[in-house]
Amino acid sequence: MTDKKKTTIVLFSGDYDKAMAAYIIANGAAAYDHEVTIFHTFWGLNALRKDEKVKLKKGLLEKMFGSMMPRGADKMGLSKMNFGGFGPQMIKGVMKKHQALPLPELISMAQEQDVKLVACTMTMDLLGLQEEELLKNIEYAGVAAYLADAEDGNVNLFI
Amino acid sequence: MTDKKKTTIVLFSGDYDKAMAAYIIANGAAAYDHEVTIFHTFWGLNALRKDEKVKLKKGLLEKMFGSMMPRGADKMGLSKMNFGGFGPQMIKGVMKKHQALPLPELISMAQEQDVKLVACTMTMDLLGLQEEELLKNIEYAGVAAYLADAEDGNVNLFI
Amino acid sequence: MTDKKKTTIVLFSGDYDKAMAAYIIANGAAAYDHEVTIFHTFWGLNALRKDEKVKLKKGLLEKMFGSMMPRGADKMGLSKMNFGGFGPQMIKGVMKKHQALPLPELISMAQEQDVKLVACTMTMDLLGLQEEELLKNIEYAGVAAYLADAEDGNVNLFI
Repeated sequence: MTDKKKTTIVLFSGDYDKAMAAYIIANGAAAYDHEVTIFHTFWGLNALRKDEKVKLKKGLLEKMFGSMMPRGADKMGLSKMNFGGFGPQMIKGVMKKHQALPLPELISMAQEQDVKLVACTMTMDLLGLQEEELLKNIEYAGVAAYLADAEDGNVNLFI
Repeated sequence: MTDKKKTTIVLFSGDYDKAMAAYIIANGAAAYDHEVTIFHTFWGLNALRKDEKVKLKKGLLEKMFGSMMPRGADKMGLSKMNFGGFGPQMIKGVMKKHQALPLPELISMAQEQDVKLVACTMTMDLLGLQEEELLKNIEYAGVAAYLADAEDGNVNLFI
Repeated sequence: MTDKKKTTIVLFSGDYDKAMAAYIIANGAAAYDHEVTIFHTFWGLNALRKDEKVKLKKGLLEKMFGSMMPRGADKMGLSKMNFGGFGPQMIKGVMKKHQALPLPELISMAQEQDVKLVACTMTMDLLGLQEEELLKNIEYAGVAAYLADAEDGNVNLFI
């Protein structure tokens, strides 16, 4: 039991810009001493993938999904103006110029601030993702755990 | 008046995967004894359409919208990797393999669990949808009813 | 300090239909005497752009972003069935027929109802947008201000 304020974000989207928004809010909330959880489901799981290929035994469909989805936060596209991958380079260019943190560093910062990063086990199954492919220090849980966090949440967002 | 926790979801999206996420959260919350409402607006209304064609008197624009939008949950596309309709087949394939419920069954389960399914009357007007085209046991309401539910909600999401 | 209910919306999306949903909820909540804030970030900032071109000194990337993004609410596209700009015309046609307010008028109404419209300064920097390009009576703030509003919010949405 805790008296801390709580922020709970479902990150459904696999877009670089939306994941950035999620992690900026999460890091901000953690800085304001909220207890923060990001529950990664569906395409949002891609933000937690390691960027190298991990050799694993998989079925055909799982292999197809695995190779078509971006490996890690840095390879995700934009929700708007993606321009076949040129858009993310533009955004990363202006971010560098304005000294804004790129997504992989926002994720590291969240981990340092004890933001709880959860991977949705049900959608991991569906997309054929395995724990070995995801970053370290991730928790694995389902919708019940999400709801337990969210029902006492002050800020609940679906991104 | 009730002491139950409350989950209120605006389903704006007409994507199969986003609607799945909405209904999985809704069914989970209902299982945890929340009072749950899904308010279907804009493209989210398509999840409530019957899959057969319903003969109705409509204007030209309404007819165009009606024929271009998917008839029912099973015909909705994916928000990512839709591949001209091949993506949903892939997802449905892995869902079957993992014994995950397809969207139409998630909707039936929600109705069995007394999740309140609401269709936004204002956007029904805009898109030219009529009650005869939607599933049975749907409520019809506007933004005022949504806000009355949401302002006491524990978990409020826009999907 | 206030006893009013609070609605706080992050408008991330630059889609006409999603922005409409945000402003319809905001205007509804204001009518029910909520304290309402819309925090415009990323592509959602485009809803606040003036529709004329404003001469400003900008770097090359900022100029590119500025010219590729829609100038103002009326020029935004749809999240679905955009059809290269024909979709918004269809929607605006049916809206006119059903006497629904177009987005620019929903924004004016929100301002008349004292909905607080905030532009996210961090993403203004990233996208190269300057105060001179945005509507009057906008507040400028960052994620900390958003969280301060949202943590006491009754209805918090990310759109």
